[in-house]
Amino acid sequence: MWTIVATWRMSKEGIEKGAEILKEKGSALDAIECAAKVVEDDPYYKSVGYGGLPNEEMEVELDAGFMDGDTLGFGAVCAIKGVANPVSVARQLSEKNVNCVLVGDGASQYAENHGFEMKDMLTERAKNLYRQRVLEMKQEMKAYRGHDTVGVLAVDSKGSMGAATSTSGLFMKKKGRVGDSPLVGSGLYADSEVGAAAATGIGENLMKGCISYEIVNLMKQGKSPQEACETAVFELEEKLKRRNGHFTDLSVVALNHKGEWGCATNIENYAVSVAKENEECKVYHVHRVGNRCEVVEASKQWIDQRVEE
Amino acid sequence: MWTIVATWRMSKEGIEKGAEILKEKGSALDAIECAAKVVEDDPYYKSVGYGGLPNEEMEVELDAGFMDGDTLGFGAVCAIKGVANPVSVARQLSEKNVNCVLVGDGASQYAENHGFEMKDMLTERAKNLYRQRVLEMKQEMKAYRGHDTVGVLAVDSKGSMGAATSTSGLFMKKKGRVGDSPLVGSGLYADSEVGAAAATGIGENLMKGCISYEIVNLMKQGKSPQEACETAVFELEEKLKRRNGHFTDLSVVALNHKGEWGCATNIENYAVSVAKENEECKVYHVHRVGNRCEVVEASKQWIDQRVEE
Repeated sequence: MWTIVATWRMSKEGIEKGAEILKEKGSALDAIECAAKVVEDDPYYKSVGYGGLPNEEMEVELDAGFMDGDTLGFGAVCAIKGVANPVSVARQLSEKNVNCVLVGDGASQYAENHGFEMKDMLTERAKNLYRQRVLEMKQEMKAYRGHDTVGVLAVDSKGSMGAATSTSGLFMKKKGRVGDSPLVGSGLYADSEVGAAAATGIGENLMKGCISYEIVNLMKQGKSPQEACETAVFELEEKLKRRNGHFTDLSVVALNHKGEWGCATNIENYAVSVAKENEECKVYHVHRVGNRCEVVEASKQWIDQRVEE
Repeated sequence: MWTIVATWRMSKEGIEKGAEILKEKGSALDAIECAAKVVEDDPYYKSVGYGGLPNEEMEVELDAGFMDGDTLGFGAVCAIKGVANPVSVARQLSEKNVNCVLVGDGASQYAENHGFEMKDMLTERAKNLYRQRVLEMKQEMKAYRGHDTVGVLAVDSKGSMGAATSTSGLFMKKKGRVGDSPLVGSGLYADSEVGAAAATGIGENLMKGCISYEIVNLMKQGKSPQEACETAVFELEEKLKRRNGHFTDLSVVALNHKGEWGCATNIENYAVSVAKENEECKVYHVHRVGNRCEVVEASKQWIDQRVEE
């Protein structure tokens, strides 16, 4: 049974489009690329693609990763600029044997030379939010907020799986800063024989635990996607508390090869979007209860508000 | 008992210097940074730091990663240019809460702004090798070779551990290309409660298995460093053969918190350098025998040849 799941409410329209592909017996890889592109193209969401918030130099630098669960092919672009759909570049790179991860100007040049659509990704709204934040930062020192990654996972009717991520990263990040999203095993991982996972939150902490690889590993050892997500998030939180003193937002989503999915978070407002064969696309709120998570269907009203996540 | 181990013969002089620090009750982190810097500074080795071979645009773009096994703090620079010691920048970033991974121009600017030594890293010898390779490539299509990463692991007398990597990556790589070396969990991982690991080889394949994280995970489950290295290398090789059809050089080194070390490879000429309390620094050849590896001490004569690895 095909299934496509993704982080946050913002991915709903994307996975609905991806679900159309899966319904027609299309591939998991086509479906996840399509879903991530819809989010990248939407100017409304400030943490992914067009309309994403800029770094401290007011440049929109984008990250994206793509993994083919059949071949384990992995591609990523980090701090790419002026490219409409970073996830599509990451996908093309995942099909190569070498030069699969490209960063900075090299990534942007590659995209331009290979015919990917070039586009000014900085919107007027993002510029205004930047200027406002500069003023605010003169008053308070808490510089960073806004860090929502779209992470999409799918299994298709043939049992192939894939994972894709796309983000503009932390608002006001340093030029060249890269979080977990485009890093294999941290932001995403996919193995068609087991399952796939993706993460969203403060990348600097998620990567300390290679959390997506860890979740796939836990599923390989027999845990359900839900158990694997909860175990990975709360064990990493505990470890960071004890070892580092500093821990923050950790949110994940996982899918196994049977189409079962799970999610976990240590923050208040996390949500996931899910579409499955013979079911309408749904959005779920994820609430932490101790070291477990309750997953509650979101109301149509809340979904229609398009709350900024 | 303190121990410091590293990939390849090229790291011998570095870990001897690192061992001096450990002998004086210095920290694992100081020792691994010092060891990696010695290799970065040596113009003779063509795959790390000064004298490293350039990308296809004749620019030396360097990658380095650094992990603190106590705090799990991780820092990295990718495709950094004109900076004498990338590993030192990675170390400073590993101490921060955000902006811990910097790529491209952002990484170079950070280093310059924070007082790190700037240096033209392209030597005359590297330029000549580049021009020669351009001519050769007109005759044969096999573009890529040369990909040796220095990966250094240490445990100090207090039981703290660290891991550091540094490389110039594939010769003739695409501008902006990044391999596994600066990627957490792929090129390196360290957890003082368990152990540390680092990898060298074709990064695009090593990252498909998050091999350093996997090795630390296997040690956590009770395997010795040697068993963990062999299991991780040969399982990944088998998986890549079956799933991807394309597999190449995979070589690793590991160290646990008790100071026991191990290594494995699927190529012919891999070597590791090791210094331990009360022992002289030694270099070992690593020979594959089925799905195990034999580790044989190298002769003084071979070490003195400084064979290019």
